[in-house]
Amino acid sequence: MNPDDLNQVEHEQISTSLEVERLEVNLFRSKSLWVPLNARGVFGGQVISQAVVSATHSVPPVYSLHSLHCYFLAKASPATPIVYQVDHVRNGNSYVTRAVRAVQNGHNIFIMVCSFHKPEPWQPSLQWRMPEVPPPDQCEDEVDLFTRLIKDPKTPQRNLKLLEDILDQRKRSPIDVRLAKDHDISEGGVVRYMYWMKARNIPKYEAPFQKGILAYISDLRFIATPSRILGLKGRTGPNSLGMSSTIDHVIWFYDHDFDTGDWLLYEMESPRIGSGRAVVHGRIYTRDGRLIAVVSQEGVLRTNIRAPEELKQETKPMAKL
Amino acid sequence: MNPDDLNQVEHEQISTSLEVERLEVNLFRSKSLWVPLNARGVFGGQVISQAVVSATHSVPPVYSLHSLHCYFLAKASPATPIVYQVDHVRNGNSYVTRAVRAVQNGHNIFIMVCSFHKPEPWQPSLQWRMPEVPPPDQCEDEVDLFTRLIKDPKTPQRNLKLLEDILDQRKRSPIDVRLAKDHDISEGGVVRYMYWMKARNIPKYEAPFQKGILAYISDLRFIATPSRILGLKGRTGPNSLGMSSTIDHVIWFYDHDFDTGDWLLYEMESPRIGSGRAVVHGRIYTRDGRLIAVVSQEGVLRTNIRAPEELKQETKPMAKL
Repeated sequence: MNPDDLNQVEHEQISTSLEVERLEVNLFRSKSLWVPLNARGVFGGQVISQAVVSATHSVPPVYSLHSLHCYFLAKASPATPIVYQVDHVRNGNSYVTRAVRAVQNGHNIFIMVCSFHKPEPWQPSLQWRMPEVPPPDQCEDEVDLFTRLIKDPKTPQRNLKLLEDILDQRKRSPIDVRLAKDHDISEGGVVRYMYWMKARNIPKYEAPFQKGILAYISDLRFIATPSRILGLKGRTGPNSLGMSSTIDHVIWFYDHDFDTGDWLLYEMESPRIGSGRAVVHGRIYTRDGRLIAVVSQEGVLRTNIRAPEELKQETKPMAKL
Repeated sequence: MNPDDLNQVEHEQISTSLEVERLEVNLFRSKSLWVPLNARGVFGGQVISQAVVSATHSVPPVYSLHSLHCYFLAKASPATPIVYQVDHVRNGNSYVTRAVRAVQNGHNIFIMVCSFHKPEPWQPSLQWRMPEVPPPDQCEDEVDLFTRLIKDPKTPQRNLKLLEDILDQRKRSPIDVRLAKDHDISEGGVVRYMYWMKARNIPKYEAPFQKGILAYISDLRFIATPSRILGLKGRTGPNSLGMSSTIDHVIWFYDHDFDTGDWLLYEMESPRIGSGRAVVHGRIYTRDGRLIAVVSQEGVLRTNIRAPEELKQETKPMAKL
């Protein structure tokens, strides 16, 4: 086994995935990095959550993380730790801002700006209603789903290896995932996907760490939304997915007291796909219907449609993104 | 007249509002700054658009702006020019990333990260449908609206001065605004506001400059969405607006050939309000229904509800945000 591979396994404990070592007051280093199956590099949600943990260390506990915006700049290798540099952009009275730059082998691989504030729970509250979906215990866990598909005699032989790898990954994952509603079409024609997700076997963590876990969760299944809406399939031809990669990610947190160890409903939709990109909006609810986070992301979305000849001169081979 | 006041007038030509002087290759300085009526500082949309113009100067023309994320860190004064420092965060082949820091009197007042790419128009395209609204020529221009309100004998005398100031500002503005649908409630209970907006009397600018103008437009009326949804009114009491201020702003551009000199429909909604903040989503369509930009913003939203005594120790007077 390649020593690098040891590092590529997703940790069964979410706390291990989020752990960073403090090298200096504003300098942190990753302890483990996970590359998802068939991914180009380290899982984006893990990088976001480690950056969140690093930034949170730099802020007095009276301030609570309420938003983050980040860009993924280059794929990260699991073979070298990522170093997170926290910059104290601004210290206000009720709001403070931090920027985090993630560096690996001398290159910027990720940049994040995030904001903390003193919560004002006496201010008015309003939210969109949680969509109606079957409760988690009536939804099939992905571990059961892939176990069932592998046993199903109708599953083509050539798919078995991939399904077994996915099942293996799902079993190890610190996050439980259950599809709650597939390709749900609203009256206005909007397609939505909904998942129940939760962290497995965690103690009752404090709010700041819960937000790190939520950041990790918020990057799961999200980028697949546009390609599922388009119905992309297979590995070749114009209707197949050529490349999918996160460009940016935003989270607005609207709760400072939730438990990622209990089921959360993650609703996903895509208002716009085009020009090799797609933007996705998401909302995360607790079981009892509290909207705790609003999420957005843009990703590269390329099918295997080739560029017309007259445009090719502008699109050299894409060694880098 | 205070010499500062000269600078506070919104320029009738949008091109003047966006103009920056290049001090060095990656250093730009504002030429004019506008403070909207009753605002705490320079108009955020102007700062974003000047940062967009600065960043665009630093990128080869083959790359097209497709997204920006920014935070407003402190109110900007119109009395001192803003200096924009462009940082070349990453130069990829198909994507490049820039960070812009806006500084005034030695303080960071604004930070933006933005991304450019080589458009891939042969890739699949999909979008949400434009909502049905009356066409612009059937909607009342805000100039006509405020003229009518001032003449209306039912308008209380005490409101006249404010209405005249608003009318004066609207007449000078480089952007025409017409309400297309007010407090529209969907079947799912989502409240939306829709406006027609366009830049007045502009020539047919190139795409990069059109995006600067769109950034300016995207910050108009947007922050008012949550307080309008809540129905906040007056200057005192728990149902009045105490403070409203933009925290962050995101734009995803999905078109590289639109004309801000023609009417654009701006649809606004707020999925979540709470803890003294609110998040707003927006979508901007051309008259013929193309979804050209997806916008999000979070703002401070404080009513004049006082903090309960037991929480007061944590909320000192808010000299800074």
